[in-house]
Amino acid sequence: MDMSTNNPILVELQRGGALESAHRGAVAVVDADGAVFSALGDIARPVFPRSAVKLLQALPLVASGAADELGLDDAMLALACASHTGEAIHVRTAAAMLTKAGLGPDALECGTHWPGLDAAARALAAAGQLPGALHNNCSGKHAGFLCLACTMHGRDGLAGFARGYVEAGHPVMREVGAALQAATGFDLSTAARGIDGCSIPTFAIPLRHLALAFARAGTGIGLSAGHALAAQRLRGAIARAPFLVGGSGRLDTRVMERLGERVCCKVGAEGVYCAALPELGLGIALKIDDGNNARAAEVALAALIEAVLPLDDADAAFLRGLSDVLLTNWNGREVGRLRASASLRGIAAA
Amino acid sequence: MDMSTNNPILVELQRGGALESAHRGAVAVVDADGAVFSALGDIARPVFPRSAVKLLQALPLVASGAADELGLDDAMLALACASHTGEAIHVRTAAAMLTKAGLGPDALECGTHWPGLDAAARALAAAGQLPGALHNNCSGKHAGFLCLACTMHGRDGLAGFARGYVEAGHPVMREVGAALQAATGFDLSTAARGIDGCSIPTFAIPLRHLALAFARAGTGIGLSAGHALAAQRLRGAIARAPFLVGGSGRLDTRVMERLGERVCCKVGAEGVYCAALPELGLGIALKIDDGNNARAAEVALAALIEAVLPLDDADAAFLRGLSDVLLTNWNGREVGRLRASASLRGIAAA
Repeated sequence: MDMSTNNPILVELQRGGALESAHRGAVAVVDADGAVFSALGDIARPVFPRSAVKLLQALPLVASGAADELGLDDAMLALACASHTGEAIHVRTAAAMLTKAGLGPDALECGTHWPGLDAAARALAAAGQLPGALHNNCSGKHAGFLCLACTMHGRDGLAGFARGYVEAGHPVMREVGAALQAATGFDLSTAARGIDGCSIPTFAIPLRHLALAFARAGTGIGLSAGHALAAQRLRGAIARAPFLVGGSGRLDTRVMERLGERVCCKVGAEGVYCAALPELGLGIALKIDDGNNARAAEVALAALIEAVLPLDDADAAFLRGLSDVLLTNWNGREVGRLRASASLRGIAAA
Repeated sequence: MDMSTNNPILVELQRGGALESAHRGAVAVVDADGAVFSALGDIARPVFPRSAVKLLQALPLVASGAADELGLDDAMLALACASHTGEAIHVRTAAAMLTKAGLGPDALECGTHWPGLDAAARALAAAGQLPGALHNNCSGKHAGFLCLACTMHGRDGLAGFARGYVEAGHPVMREVGAALQAATGFDLSTAARGIDGCSIPTFAIPLRHLALAFARAGTGIGLSAGHALAAQRLRGAIARAPFLVGGSGRLDTRVMERLGERVCCKVGAEGVYCAALPELGLGIALKIDDGNNARAAEVALAALIEAVLPLDDADAAFLRGLSDVLLTNWNGREVGRLRASASLRGIAAA
C-alpha cells in the first residue's frame, strides 16, 4: 500500500481566487467484465473500503433467505446497507430488525457513539438521554448480521451463537467475507486485514476490484444467481428508502432521493466511495488519499456521476450543485468554492 | 498557489499494518533573521494562515496601549489570540472584554455557531439554549478588535465607529494588517486576499515568512519595540492561561499547559500551524495540503516540536503521545496508528 506514487488532484478548495487546499486520490470506473472504462491515479493499490461495501456485506442476509423468513421490509434492508445519522427512524428501524431476530440492542457489537448528525445529538442531549448502540451509524448493518445469524442457527439459543459475530472466524463473518470475495474477485486470504470502526474486519482491495464488484452488483453479471437477485432486491430497497441508508443532509440520501435506481452509491470512512450505475453496466470506486470523506469524496462522486451518466438539465444542475459547492462563512458571506478538479471533470472523455 | 509540485507525506494513518491514508504538506523552521533552519516541501507557495496568526493580529491591541487602558488580564489577552471551544469560561471572558470596551455581544461581527466542543454544544442544547456570537471560536479575537477600536476612537460613539470593523478598509483592520505585514516581512498589498470564517480578511503568505514572523514574535528581533513588548506580553498571557487559547482537548492548550513559555503555538483552519520556540530563536509554520487540521496538522506540529526542542524524557514522551497516536474504535479496540512520517521525524537532522 505504497503512496509514493502521486495521485492527481481530484477536488480543490478555492478561497479569494486562490487554491487553498487540495485532495488527491484515485478513481476507477469499470464494467462487469472488469474492463476499465475510465481511471485516474493508482487503481491497483489496495485500499480499505470500510463502509462503502455494506451492500456487498448484506448480500448473504437476502441470499440466505433470512430477510424473507423474518419479513424484513425495504426500510430494514436499506438500513442493513446504511451508515446512518442516528435519527429517530434509524434507531427505531434497527430496533425492529433485532426484534424480528428475537434479540435486543445488547446483542449489537458495534459499540456506541453520539448520532452523526449534530442536530440529532443535541436533540438527544436536550431530552436528557445518552446514545446507545442503536445510534451507532452501523447499527443497521449489525442488526442485519444478527438476522442472518438467525437463519444459520435458528432462534433457539441464538444469543449464544451470535456472540462474537464481528470476529473474522465466526460463521456470519465468514459468509460476509465470502460474498465480498466473490463480488470483487479479489483473494481476501492474502489481503491486508484491518479492524473497522464497528469491529468487523475490513480488507484492503484495489479500487479496480471494488468498481468491478459494484458493476456486478448493478447488473448481476458475474454474480451467483442468489447474489444477483439479492443485489437487485437491496438496490430496490435503497432506492425506495434512501433516507434509511444515510439521513438528513447525507449525500447518499440526497443523490438517491433524486435519481432513484439509476445510482446506487455508498460512502465509506477515510474518503472511499463506491457506486453502481446499472443502466450503463458500470461500477465506480474512488479513494481520497488523505481520507477526507466529509467533503472530498462526496464532491468527487457527484462529479463522476455527472460526467458519466446521461442526465437531463435539471438532474445535471442538481449534481453540479454537489460537485461545485459555494462556501459561505458564519455570516453567510461567500468565501470560496469546493469543486471537482479539471482532471476529474475530464474523466468521461478520457 | 500552484499545487502541482508534490509535497512530501508528513502524517500517515496505519490500519491493519497497512497505510490507509496520508497527509502531504510543507514545513518551514526559520530563525529571526529569516535563515531556514530546516524545511520540507514548498515553503515559497503562499498559504492562507487563517487563525494561526491571531497572536500577530493581537499585537496592536497591546502595542496601542488599549489592553492596559482597559485593564485586560491574562485570560482576556489569551482569548484575544484564541480559537476556543465555546466553553463557559470562554463565553464569560469574551463578554467581560466587551464590557470593558463599553459594548455588548451584538457588536461582534464574527457570526454564530455551536460550540466547537461537542460536549459543550450538547450541554447548551440540554439547557434549552441556542449559541450566540460569544460562542464563536473567534469571539475573543473580535472582542480584542473592539477593545482596540476603543483607543482609536474613544468610547463615545464607539458602536458607530466599530461597525464594519471586519472590513479591510476599517482603521482597526488596517492596523491589524500592518502588524501582520511588519512581522512577516511580506507585502500584503500584492498578496491573494480571502475572507476568513469570521469575516475578516486573510492574506496568502509563504510558510517561510510565517515562520519568520513567529521567530520574531518569540524573540522580539526584527519587530518594532512596541510590537516586541506586545508579543512578549501576549506569549506570557497565553502561557499563564492556556485553556483560554483553546479549550478541552485542544492541542494548543495541552502543549502549553505542559511546556509553558517554551512553546507558543496556534492552529489555523485548513491544516495550518504556526509556533514560536523562543529559547531557540526559531519560528515554525506548516500547512497540510488537504486542509486537515483536526488530526494531520496537530500530529505534524507535535512531531516538529519533539524533533527540534531539547526535551527531558517525560516531555519527550508527552509529545510522542501526540505525534504517534494509537487509534481505537467504538469498542475501544486498537485499530491503527496516526503518526508523523519518517521524513517529518528526520527534519531536525536535515
